[in-house]
Amino acid sequence: MALKTGDEYIQSLKELDLKAHVMGQAAGGLTSHALVEPSMRAVAQTYDCAHDPQSKDLFRVISPLCNEEVNRFTHLHQSAQDLVNKVRMQRHCGNLTGCCFQRCVGMDAANAVYSSTFDIDAATGSAYHQRFKEYWAWVQKNDLVVDGAMTDPKGDRGKRPKDQTDPDMYLRIKERRQDGVIISGAKLHQTGMLNSHEILIMPTISLRPGEEPWAVCCAVPTTAPGVRYIYGRQTSDTRKLESCRLDVGNPKFGGQEVLTVFEDVLVPWERVFMAGETAFSGTLVERFASYHRQSYGGCKVGVGDLLIGAAALAAQMNGVAAASHIREKLVEMIHLNETLYSCGLACSAMGQPTASGNYLVDMLLANVCKLNVTRFPYELARLATDIGGGLLGTMPAAADLEDPVAGPYIRKYLKAADGVAVEDRFKVLRFIENLVAGAGSVAYLIESMHGAGPPTAQRIMIGRQGDLEGKMQKVKSLLDLA
Amino acid sequence: MALKTGDEYIQSLKELDLKAHVMGQAAGGLTSHALVEPSMRAVAQTYDCAHDPQSKDLFRVISPLCNEEVNRFTHLHQSAQDLVNKVRMQRHCGNLTGCCFQRCVGMDAANAVYSSTFDIDAATGSAYHQRFKEYWAWVQKNDLVVDGAMTDPKGDRGKRPKDQTDPDMYLRIKERRQDGVIISGAKLHQTGMLNSHEILIMPTISLRPGEEPWAVCCAVPTTAPGVRYIYGRQTSDTRKLESCRLDVGNPKFGGQEVLTVFEDVLVPWERVFMAGETAFSGTLVERFASYHRQSYGGCKVGVGDLLIGAAALAAQMNGVAAASHIREKLVEMIHLNETLYSCGLACSAMGQPTASGNYLVDMLLANVCKLNVTRFPYELARLATDIGGGLLGTMPAAADLEDPVAGPYIRKYLKAADGVAVEDRFKVLRFIENLVAGAGSVAYLIESMHGAGPPTAQRIMIGRQGDLEGKMQKVKSLLDLA
Amino acid sequence: MALKTGDEYIQSLKELDLKAHVMGQAAGGLTSHALVEPSMRAVAQTYDCAHDPQSKDLFRVISPLCNEEVNRFTHLHQSAQDLVNKVRMQRHCGNLTGCCFQRCVGMDAANAVYSSTFDIDAATGSAYHQRFKEYWAWVQKNDLVVDGAMTDPKGDRGKRPKDQTDPDMYLRIKERRQDGVIISGAKLHQTGMLNSHEILIMPTISLRPGEEPWAVCCAVPTTAPGVRYIYGRQTSDTRKLESCRLDVGNPKFGGQEVLTVFEDVLVPWERVFMAGETAFSGTLVERFASYHRQSYGGCKVGVGDLLIGAAALAAQMNGVAAASHIREKLVEMIHLNETLYSCGLACSAMGQPTASGNYLVDMLLANVCKLNVTRFPYELARLATDIGGGLLGTMPAAADLEDPVAGPYIRKYLKAADGVAVEDRFKVLRFIENLVAGAGSVAYLIESMHGAGPPTAQRIMIGRQGDLEGKMQKVKSLLDLA
Amino acid sequence: MALKTGDEYIQSLKELDLKAHVMGQAAGGLTSHALVEPSMRAVAQTYDCAHDPQSKDLFRVISPLCNEEVNRFTHLHQSAQDLVNKVRMQRHCGNLTGCCFQRCVGMDAANAVYSSTFDIDAATGSAYHQRFKEYWAWVQKNDLVVDGAMTDPKGDRGKRPKDQTDPDMYLRIKERRQDGVIISGAKLHQTGMLNSHEILIMPTISLRPGEEPWAVCCAVPTTAPGVRYIYGRQTSDTRKLESCRLDVGNPKFGGQEVLTVFEDVLVPWERVFMAGETAFSGTLVERFASYHRQSYGGCKVGVGDLLIGAAALAAQMNGVAAASHIREKLVEMIHLNETLYSCGLACSAMGQPTASGNYLVDMLLANVCKLNVTRFPYELARLATDIGGGLLGTMPAAADLEDPVAGPYIRKYLKAADGVAVEDRFKVLRFIENLVAGAGSVAYLIESMHGAGPPTAQRIMIGRQGDLEGKMQKVKSLLDLA
Repeated sequence: MALKTGDEYIQSLKELDLKAHVMGQAAGGLTSHALVEPSMRAVAQTYDCAHDPQSKDLFRVISPLCNEEVNRFTHLHQSAQDLVNKVRMQRHCGNLTGCCFQRCVGMDAANAVYSSTFDIDAATGSAYHQRFKEYWAWVQKNDLVVDGAMTDPKGDRGKRPKDQTDPDMYLRIKERRQDGVIISGAKLHQTGMLNSHEILIMPTISLRPGEEPWAVCCAVPTTAPGVRYIYGRQTSDTRKLESCRLDVGNPKFGGQEVLTVFEDVLVPWERVFMAGETAFSGTLVERFASYHRQSYGGCKVGVGDLLIGAAALAAQMNGVAAASHIREKLVEMIHLNETLYSCGLACSAMGQPTASGNYLVDMLLANVCKLNVTRFPYELARLATDIGGGLLGTMPAAADLEDPVAGPYIRKYLKAADGVAVEDRFKVLRFIENLVAGAGSVAYLIESMHGAGPPTAQRIMIGRQGDLEGKMQKVKSLLDLA
Repeated sequence: MALKTGDEYIQSLKELDLKAHVMGQAAGGLTSHALVEPSMRAVAQTYDCAHDPQSKDLFRVISPLCNEEVNRFTHLHQSAQDLVNKVRMQRHCGNLTGCCFQRCVGMDAANAVYSSTFDIDAATGSAYHQRFKEYWAWVQKNDLVVDGAMTDPKGDRGKRPKDQTDPDMYLRIKERRQDGVIISGAKLHQTGMLNSHEILIMPTISLRPGEEPWAVCCAVPTTAPGVRYIYGRQTSDTRKLESCRLDVGNPKFGGQEVLTVFEDVLVPWERVFMAGETAFSGTLVERFASYHRQSYGGCKVGVGDLLIGAAALAAQMNGVAAASHIREKLVEMIHLNETLYSCGLACSAMGQPTASGNYLVDMLLANVCKLNVTRFPYELARLATDIGGGLLGTMPAAADLEDPVAGPYIRKYLKAADGVAVEDRFKVLRFIENLVAGAGSVAYLIESMHGAGPPTAQRIMIGRQGDLEGKMQKVKSLLDLA
Repeated sequence: MALKTGDEYIQSLKELDLKAHVMGQAAGGLTSHALVEPSMRAVAQTYDCAHDPQSKDLFRVISPLCNEEVNRFTHLHQSAQDLVNKVRMQRHCGNLTGCCFQRCVGMDAANAVYSSTFDIDAATGSAYHQRFKEYWAWVQKNDLVVDGAMTDPKGDRGKRPKDQTDPDMYLRIKERRQDGVIISGAKLHQTGMLNSHEILIMPTISLRPGEEPWAVCCAVPTTAPGVRYIYGRQTSDTRKLESCRLDVGNPKFGGQEVLTVFEDVLVPWERVFMAGETAFSGTLVERFASYHRQSYGGCKVGVGDLLIGAAALAAQMNGVAAASHIREKLVEMIHLNETLYSCGLACSAMGQPTASGNYLVDMLLANVCKLNVTRFPYELARLATDIGGGLLGTMPAAADLEDPVAGPYIRKYLKAADGVAVEDRFKVLRFIENLVAGAGSVAYLIESMHGAGPPTAQRIMIGRQGDLEGKMQKVKSLLDLA
Repeated sequence: MALKTGDEYIQSLKELDLKAHVMGQAAGGLTSHALVEPSMRAVAQTYDCAHDPQSKDLFRVISPLCNEEVNRFTHLHQSAQDLVNKVRMQRHCGNLTGCCFQRCVGMDAANAVYSSTFDIDAATGSAYHQRFKEYWAWVQKNDLVVDGAMTDPKGDRGKRPKDQTDPDMYLRIKERRQDGVIISGAKLHQTGMLNSHEILIMPTISLRPGEEPWAVCCAVPTTAPGVRYIYGRQTSDTRKLESCRLDVGNPKFGGQEVLTVFEDVLVPWERVFMAGETAFSGTLVERFASYHRQSYGGCKVGVGDLLIGAAALAAQMNGVAAASHIREKLVEMIHLNETLYSCGLACSAMGQPTASGNYLVDMLLANVCKLNVTRFPYELARLATDIGGGLLGTMPAAADLEDPVAGPYIRKYLKAADGVAVEDRFKVLRFIENLVAGAGSVAYLIESMHGAGPPTAQRIMIGRQGDLEGKMQKVKSLLDLA
């Protein structure tokens, strides 16, 4: 089957005809809903790039699973170079969209489930791996968007799943039946859900014996009966509903998030990839998290490039591009952004094959990568705010530019360097605002903090993987300690 | 005359009946305009505090200028302790409002103009100082809000005022007449303008001989003919227009900014405090800037207290208040916030009398204070985002809480620790969102960067005031260098 | 009695004729011992400054305790201004010596003991306060150096004093006798001990009922039988023993530390100020620590000034003083150093009287001050290393400058800007080396970290004093939370 | 020829019998000179590792240049994997020695000269490349240490080489003769020089037409007539001369630096690889710098591992290893150290072949790597100082441990957790002191700042390589700007 174009992808979503609850209203027609459409268009870019002559070589790859050329976003990584290329691809998408393009989470989930099911089978004699291979080959052939769904509501953080007042605080198998399992629960913070064909569900923590119902990994279509979506509102989101697009900042692309509820959803056995194997939930979580922490070393870097470019343009429009302090700040922004990229690349280049054959990132370095992502975009945003200037907080609405009374005053007084159109200056400043304090900041800042787990989760992993014992041993050798 | 209450202040504003251009529309009735009213209420707090038994001693002070008890926001500082009390008062207002309460700029302008006019008179034999004293005594007696207006549009930053294509890029005296001066130009980033009775205009840079028209300091009422206001839109501002208040984050208070145009406005001579004395414009700018940089060591600290408190509440609601990493982050937030406060206090305690008799902050330390304000609130916001959690970017609209379909799901799945009302959790998280990525972030982050001048302005002053020569001399003494 | 001069002080020390164990040898004649003398000279500065016309007003103050003019280093602070002046005095001494001048710890101890003994007496009816007043009046009249001794060895940090294998791990009262108490134990990290006349001993932790023997505060002369001193060696210390002084870096002043052992030392009752009142040990520790944390906002700032001056000189000698990146780094150094000073001033200006009448710093802000001192000097050192250049690690010994073979090559190739003597360049670079990596770094970096307690101690105090509960309450008020 | 062992290498150095001027004395027998020997032993490790079964696979590689197995330290990188392996090898050496092992600079120089001579020949028809290949094949076969010598004294930084008062401020060709060139000048900061067989000289800046004499790249043996060495003294270096080794901190290995003078040294034509081709000096400098900036992402990480291990041991010995704040600091240290490693790996993995066939690192990322190295080791040192405790500045000399008087007191009072030998605690703390403030800090901190160029050099390269123009273009595309 041929790789889809962006338009074909959008058409396929239209056919799904998902409904969601959006800010107090049941809403359909999401593919043209002003709050959802920009995020859908960002996903569409991942399809179009596989056709763009400039990028198609990076986005297309032969998959041994289906023996066809697939979009790399559905690929199971076959080498460290594949892992490197994943990060390069993500940076490219960030460069094009300036937002989250959402398709990484399914790719990361698939790679984690692929190797984890292999390990479960090897240990228990189950047949999950083959099942997953068939499922994923189908995904590849149909070039689908899969939302990887991990984060449970968690209720009282001090309690285990089975000790919660409400057992649904962690998504669980409520019933095992002949035809499949009935699952119940919810997944939070689902970025690309409304733009997806499929949902790949994973547990969110390492589980223990006695917690079998929560050890569930499975896939359902986004259209499955019992699945409900509640839109999460974000800062400045309603600018997308206004007639004038300029104030949105990012005129074409954007994000959205949903709370997804699974109310007694039936999952047929051929879509169940873990059902009670608590011993392997930790492995699956760690692998998915590591892949996804690697991803941030690509996508956020791509967005960072745009923030740097916009800051440079703002400086140019202000006529201060040559000032040494501006130059120093831009260099610092590049330095921090490339440090993130270096971390994304390093955990990729040091990737190793799993027992199942696909490649896993270096888990220590992937966590190091993400921990830096919880820091540097904030400093980039701070520096962009510095360069952008006070107008980031005080600029009139674009609508006023056309107003017969206010317009001329604005054009007179918010003119900057000669030859710069006021509209262009507004566009650049609104784009910076979008990323540092507007709708785009949800992806660029809040998601950089919490996506793929908060910094504390990375610190725990770094503590575990950092081989402190080995370092102490090296000192003992050097110092001839007892 | 008795000190006004908040309600009396609001009544006085109603009587002014200002008009502004707001997002494409000419708007009146601003005191009850949803986009403006929250900011007006923040100013009203500065009045009510002078009546609140808990704070009145701090907010009331006897002014030698009018020999009456005045609101400290109109006071000319008579001692270093007055300067310290100013900062304490500002922190208190920040604690109550969580936003910019706007009245500082007029206080800071008055103190700078007071001593600068004295110096001009002493050098040139002019009579500005007495004129200003009469004006300000009237302000004190009537307990008015005065907007200090400094920032000019500046056009091409590489050119002096007189070399700009349009001479209005810096506000100027266009004509000197028998009855006064005609001024023309604009002032950007005017935070409290729509809530003010008076405007105190100052030049924005140090001027040189030949630039006399731009060396202008004067006062006009906000109702003066020829003055026009264009509202500056801010991230997430339109949530204030929605019926459900919860999503606004800060339910009672807020900010707004306007671009103010002065189109051939007549200023009678008794309101002119500088008209061509270029040699003193630098002094006036530096003093105002120093006072205002001190102010940030009070107001932003007050807002920071709330952000810390909200983060602590969020952690408590998540049931993780006792986690060591949460505790460490809260301590770090307190540490940074109190460092800012220390800087605000230090430049006050080291304040010295000017030739005119009022007290001026230590200018080196005031600039150090503000430079820290361009950094630490960003780290506080980052840490609050960390503690607040991913829901800061994904939480459904409050409207959905009451929805019969979505509401129960939200209540089920976004419940946190037992005993915490979901509404309360929403309120706390929306308040954090307000400050780190919403409407409140304009004051807490963007204004912390650019208000009272961007960091480069502070660095230049620190370089100038830091006595590098003296430090080199000390080393030469210690090392017996030639 | 007249205030001593530096020479009179040195003479008084000579008469004490202390002995110490120094690097494997029992040593006397310490006042002219090359390893000790530079530190003694730094103390002598505190005496000379009280006679120097430029500084005597700052260093002299009338003490109500003895109704005489005393050196401020023995003063009990009578106002917030006294606290501010203390910090100013410390910065001045740092400016003159570039090292630790050691006399602060006794001043800080006295002020803490003064108010704590008052509180003990008020609660228990004891008579410690009067006893201490008499002791301290004698110290003031004789213008003595008193070493405040707090830090115990602590043995196993996981155990309380009474659970240690060796009860001497915390200094204790071993026996109560008619004529006094016998104490046993040791105090670590005693900076000015060998240059002191008296030792004022305090407990190091908050004690509990049952730990009475360790709740001891008392004074002994440094010559008391049973007191022994073991010199602590420091990085690069032996350069002081070399014939060529240039390589020492700081040619006149320096530091040293000793481990002090108290082996069954008799303390007569008139020198005992706490003996078993466990309930007050915490208060005493906290007050001393707070005063001493304030001190660092003065002394280290004074040393920082010299480091900044030296970096500026190095840049000048390299002919790069005008480079924008050099300028930016120097401004950053000034900014950080003045932030420390601001913290030192702020906790002073906010000082309040204790029940006993002397003034105590704001304890929250004093801890904030010290926590910044554990960070910023490191960044100052890093920036000075950057500006100083690679020669900081590769410059030949000064001895080689005079060598007939090597000298001419060095003079040829290590010449910098025209007109700069190579010796002067060497002096400046060795001085920077001294502070960033040499003997002076012990005081400037290691002591900045651990003196007056390590950062964790400050964090605990900030957590306790930061009023988190009040901040949460303010948010609840603003948001109308239940 | 077989790869040398460490002992064989040392023997070969003995045969060279170099002389140097050391702290005021002409010195021979350097291979057993206490100030030089530890650094020689560090180089010897690079030989022994090629024989150690645990590391030999990493250290040995087949060189296509000589068709033999060579030590990787003499290898011309044939792939990105070779570049990655270089960094892994460097980390390993850092792990073993805790200091600079000096052999990288020759490897980095050779790789830069290899591709640059190819480019010169291609452009000018010269035959330098073949000449260099023959030279380097000889180096490989004889398994030699080559010191890459770049940094010139530079005199007045504001002047070009030809405008200096003394033309030798930049090493130059003084005379071209039949048998070769006569060079004159000096190279500063030569770390491994005294432990090298050969010197590979390169220019230090990009040169312009008219500056041909300074465009010189050539090789001479360290024994060449006219070459003189002047030892650079370093903080705490003389502890190596003391009888008790414990206080040295790093008991086996260390560093040293020399100023190398070239006084009319004859270089035969077969060792001349550039002589006047100014157009290529910039390329050579940039390539060498980039390789060497990559190197720091390996070697300093290896030393960092030891510092982390030592801090962890110190905490363990203090009985506080389980404290959450200790744990957090160790995690932070690991995080920063692995970020450096990630940067070293990333610029390697993204390496590309040069026209000559060997592989060059990604130059942008290599500069990013080094710029981080100018920051993070300082923070690692600060954290290690925090964990290590105040004894880092106050611990008695090890000699005192055996003293009959002082020893027992030290053993009593500096005992930490049960079961820890006091000597072992001393060893660990002295090792930390060595790296944060002692002799080792020259390599770990000062060299991290200035080695391979100071941070400003990296910033300039990042500004040049960061494709700011491309980033602006991407924003223009997204925002549809004119």
